[in-house]
Amino acid sequence: MTSSSWEEFFAVHLPPTDFEDNRSLLKEFCERHDQYGNKIVLVTSGGTTVPLEHNTVRFVDNFSAGTRGSASAEYFLEQGYAVIFMHRQKSLEPFTRHFSGQKLLDMLDIQERGPNTTITVKPDSVDVLAPVLLRYKAAHAAGAILYVSFTTVSEYFWLLRAACECLANLGPRAVLYLAAAVSDFYIPKDKVPTHKMQSGSGAPVIQLHLVPKMLAPLVNLWVPEAYVVSFKLETDENLLIPKARAALDKYKHKMVVANLLQTRHHRVILVSPEASQEIVLTREEVHAGVDIESAIVGEIVRLHAHHADAAPAPAPR
Amino acid sequence: MTSSSWEEFFAVHLPPTDFEDNRSLLKEFCERHDQYGNKIVLVTSGGTTVPLEHNTVRFVDNFSAGTRGSASAEYFLEQGYAVIFMHRQKSLEPFTRHFSGQKLLDMLDIQERGPNTTITVKPDSVDVLAPVLLRYKAAHAAGAILYVSFTTVSEYFWLLRAACECLANLGPRAVLYLAAAVSDFYIPKDKVPTHKMQSGSGAPVIQLHLVPKMLAPLVNLWVPEAYVVSFKLETDENLLIPKARAALDKYKHKMVVANLLQTRHHRVILVSPEASQEIVLTREEVHAGVDIESAIVGEIVRLHAHHADAAPAPAPR
Repeated sequence: MTSSSWEEFFAVHLPPTDFEDNRSLLKEFCERHDQYGNKIVLVTSGGTTVPLEHNTVRFVDNFSAGTRGSASAEYFLEQGYAVIFMHRQKSLEPFTRHFSGQKLLDMLDIQERGPNTTITVKPDSVDVLAPVLLRYKAAHAAGAILYVSFTTVSEYFWLLRAACECLANLGPRAVLYLAAAVSDFYIPKDKVPTHKMQSGSGAPVIQLHLVPKMLAPLVNLWVPEAYVVSFKLETDENLLIPKARAALDKYKHKMVVANLLQTRHHRVILVSPEASQEIVLTREEVHAGVDIESAIVGEIVRLHAHHADAAPAPAPR
Repeated sequence: MTSSSWEEFFAVHLPPTDFEDNRSLLKEFCERHDQYGNKIVLVTSGGTTVPLEHNTVRFVDNFSAGTRGSASAEYFLEQGYAVIFMHRQKSLEPFTRHFSGQKLLDMLDIQERGPNTTITVKPDSVDVLAPVLLRYKAAHAAGAILYVSFTTVSEYFWLLRAACECLANLGPRAVLYLAAAVSDFYIPKDKVPTHKMQSGSGAPVIQLHLVPKMLAPLVNLWVPEAYVVSFKLETDENLLIPKARAALDKYKHKMVVANLLQTRHHRVILVSPEASQEIVLTREEVHAGVDIESAIVGEIVRLHAHHADAAPAPAPR
């Protein structure tokens, strides 16, 4: 029932196999944008898994399609931020989130002329696709977005710490927008069986352990000057604000975006140490396809500007 | 620790909300193809989830991207079968499986001319996209594929039984290709908490229960004349064939496709009551991008033809 410390977690769980590659990518990305004086946001998105076996057939998953994170990344790009999009593999991504694979194939017309076959987007789909495609191409051409992905909670933590190490140099110009649904529970490495659990031996009992709260070292040690936003997803309205306030008291970061599972696409509450502010989409906005993330990001960008301006000028390097 | 009976499972777990819609679609699809004397295969694909809360934030998931099922569906279509593609929501689908969203966007060129803006597929991507697009369009135009989707193990079982009820009319012309990774374990409805588990109350213990083996009523009662293929995924080579044989002995169906998690993309063993046959891709085939599902489906189609021919002629209706 014990929750291990964060140092213990990193000591016991080895880095993922592609960790050094990702660390290089993060380093290059942050240094490049730091040079230009850009603001960088780390957007985490999607759920983490907790493997129940070493050869993973089964795992405990946290629900998250990546809707919030992938939409938010687009709005941060629009606001001129460089974006590290750290997401669960196969979860929704900025730009492509607007179109399922079938929807894209259905947009295409093929003109078969042997070696001169051409494929074009149907005229009535161009209106829908063109604006997204232009923003996608602009972001990629500018090198304004870096994609890194995780699956397990351990991979998530390794990447998170590596990203923080790079972002620390940006001081108050960095935003951490921690929208990923990270498991509160896990099974320590030495308690995970090697092979698939066999149903013949009866139904298993899974003993979960508490995951260390990484927000504590993140705020205090890893990126002490950054503007850190965490998320709180609950299903019980009565717990929502109290739990958001408790998190702010405990971790001393800048904001909790609090939301209920049932209404999260049209209502959130931005809770900061000083105030709390509700954002609600009207029925008309919902019907018109307005993303609530546009408003959330807009408000965070405004508050982040205050934060960055109020910070003492950086020492010359 | 008790495993409930399948009748009990359906009595306790209500049908999913879109169940009647899906049942109508299945009925219409089967009747239409039955009329033309077509063969129909039900391909199940992707993993099922077991919710740990009613307002689902967390669930236990079975690992499966849907690679096997989505590829196999394409090869069954190629062999002239009508395909019911019953898949986990967001898992891979036939045709679109070849291209991620980003890969598709990267294939596109945009020519901005205001209201006459056009979007075309880059010439060097046409070669890759055209054959898939043509097969996709042909299958859809012919109404040869029906997509139905599930998420939880309970939704899966409801859909499976409904599909069987429609397929029963086809007698031996139906194939069931049960490639989905169905959970062996679940938490009965009355044992699932309503709200999100709180980490403050310590780490929870999850008591899983055994899922009833639906293959028994499926083979004996629901589609007794169909050609039924199940799948066995193990991580331990020593268990592979014994467990496949044990399943055939117990359920009396036609074939188990046995595979190891580690090598499943280039090696499977088709185990039938009479024989077992290994299919292995050569290194060259793997490099050339050959799908092992092409060989699996080819062999099953051959055996199914024997099965259908050997069956007594249907009584006139």
